[in-house]
Amino acid sequence: MDVNTQSTVLLVLDLLGTSAFALNGALTAVRVTRIDIVGVVTLGMITALGGGIIRDILIEDLPPATFSDWRYLAVAAAGSLLAFFARKLERLSTPITMFDAAGLSLFAVTGAGKALDFGLGPVQAIILGTITGVGGGTVRDVLIRRVPIVLNSELYAIPALVAATVLVVCESLEVPTLPAALGAAALCFVIRMVGVRYDLDAPRPRGFDDPDPPKPA
Amino acid sequence: MDVNTQSTVLLVLDLLGTSAFALNGALTAVRVTRIDIVGVVTLGMITALGGGIIRDILIEDLPPATFSDWRYLAVAAAGSLLAFFARKLERLSTPITMFDAAGLSLFAVTGAGKALDFGLGPVQAIILGTITGVGGGTVRDVLIRRVPIVLNSELYAIPALVAATVLVVCESLEVPTLPAALGAAALCFVIRMVGVRYDLDAPRPRGFDDPDPPKPA
Amino acid sequence: MDVNTQSTVLLVLDLLGTSAFALNGALTAVRVTRIDIVGVVTLGMITALGGGIIRDILIEDLPPATFSDWRYLAVAAAGSLLAFFARKLERLSTPITMFDAAGLSLFAVTGAGKALDFGLGPVQAIILGTITGVGGGTVRDVLIRRVPIVLNSELYAIPALVAATVLVVCESLEVPTLPAALGAAALCFVIRMVGVRYDLDAPRPRGFDDPDPPKPA
Repeated sequence: MDVNTQSTVLLVLDLLGTSAFALNGALTAVRVTRIDIVGVVTLGMITALGGGIIRDILIEDLPPATFSDWRYLAVAAAGSLLAFFARKLERLSTPITMFDAAGLSLFAVTGAGKALDFGLGPVQAIILGTITGVGGGTVRDVLIRRVPIVLNSELYAIPALVAATVLVVCESLEVPTLPAALGAAALCFVIRMVGVRYDLDAPRPRGFDDPDPPKPA
Repeated sequence: MDVNTQSTVLLVLDLLGTSAFALNGALTAVRVTRIDIVGVVTLGMITALGGGIIRDILIEDLPPATFSDWRYLAVAAAGSLLAFFARKLERLSTPITMFDAAGLSLFAVTGAGKALDFGLGPVQAIILGTITGVGGGTVRDVLIRRVPIVLNSELYAIPALVAATVLVVCESLEVPTLPAALGAAALCFVIRMVGVRYDLDAPRPRGFDDPDPPKPA
Repeated sequence: MDVNTQSTVLLVLDLLGTSAFALNGALTAVRVTRIDIVGVVTLGMITALGGGIIRDILIEDLPPATFSDWRYLAVAAAGSLLAFFARKLERLSTPITMFDAAGLSLFAVTGAGKALDFGLGPVQAIILGTITGVGGGTVRDVLIRRVPIVLNSELYAIPALVAATVLVVCESLEVPTLPAALGAAALCFVIRMVGVRYDLDAPRPRGFDDPDPPKPA
């Protein structure tokens, strides 16, 4: 697969992740706080673009793709507006969780892939993919005053780490980018959703393993 | 108007915005929490410099003007100290709101102008101006654990967006920078203060339009 | 002292600061919230690497040392894991405070030193050293929803400012880097711990000087 096709694959997955996080962020805004359309769209766009902006700052691809490529802004704005008008969805927590898992999966893969393209080593690419995946949701949670999901949730950083690792290993084995990226993202999505469904957690410190831990509001 | 004059206009407006946000941040610190002079000055400086630092990172003008040009640090520190010693003002919420609106207006304009100077497109410049305007206040609110005003307030992002748009349009029409910038900032300031005065909000999701919504503490 | 030796001194101190903040962040995570091993390690690593990443972005040394030099990641991860398994320490608040003071001291010095290496002026280097010192702890506190210690604590920013200033003055007097850096860091550590021990504060606004101010949760 030539370089252009590879870039296109990453771009498309990046835009899909952007739209998923935009829907998630905007629906979260509607759900957790009584904010107006500007607040909903703002939170949607920050959630959608936060991970990619952090990634682009860290690999020094500035101005970030968000600014140099209008499609990111358009997709993030469209997803946020769509969520505002389809906000009955917010009564269902499943779509919110699924959009979040989709954004996490796609951004973990595109973050790792872009880091490799910029010449970072494999470990760095894995970490950067994970940061890209969890970044937008972390900013979202800080802004609405929740403990970030990455600190306080069933399997969240781990699936992102797995997806980024799979992508990096596949690239080193010269597996074509499209199946590698889709497979890695799908794996992350499945692990994340299984974790949510069965309320799985990574090991906790002892003394904190009461059966029904309070969740942050 | 030649390039030097234009740069001077942006610099002066940027320093005015910095001082306004320094006063606002420091008075907010005195008002909302019982913190010492270091805390007051720290919050004043972060509020004053936050928006510009975010702008300079995103357009890759590093180190940020804050570091390469000592006047920003001096103005931010002076404004914060002044607020600490004039802290009886904190009993009046109007000055706090007015300083915030002034910083928002000036930074929306200078952010958009600097983005154009760095060769970004018009839409990117508008978004970047808005980010510059709302950035410092958002960091301030996160640090003192308030829901950011941009998510939870009467017209806040919209006037910044309007001011940035006016500036970008004026520049493309080759209106001289000084009147364009002052006009755009004044427009933003007026819209923001009218919004505060009449407690106007952008449209909210239905079901949340009770007459007296609780504000975050 | 030649440049290589000087770089080595800064690197070693930077890694020591990283490990101190990793232990502090991970123990804080165990202490304040019921989070799993991923959350503990994540908070440890963010606390450890946050200050240096902010520094490297501001002086445009990108990708940050965190990514280009694997030792930072390794030290941060090892410190966080160690804290997770030695978590009985969390019942004692003294180690948490001491690790925090150590990280603050070391990062204030390395931040100022690296800024000088990158050609920033003395005032800029002092401010950047202070930001590097307080940055990781501020990010940590925001993520766990505490008012940042830099805003709400006995002497915290001031010792960092003192250490950065001492280092910058020593460098301009051509004092060898190793004793200058160690002396500056030790001074910061002592001031900070004396402040904690005797509950000293910088001057507060009047009317807020009740004898037993409530601390944030």
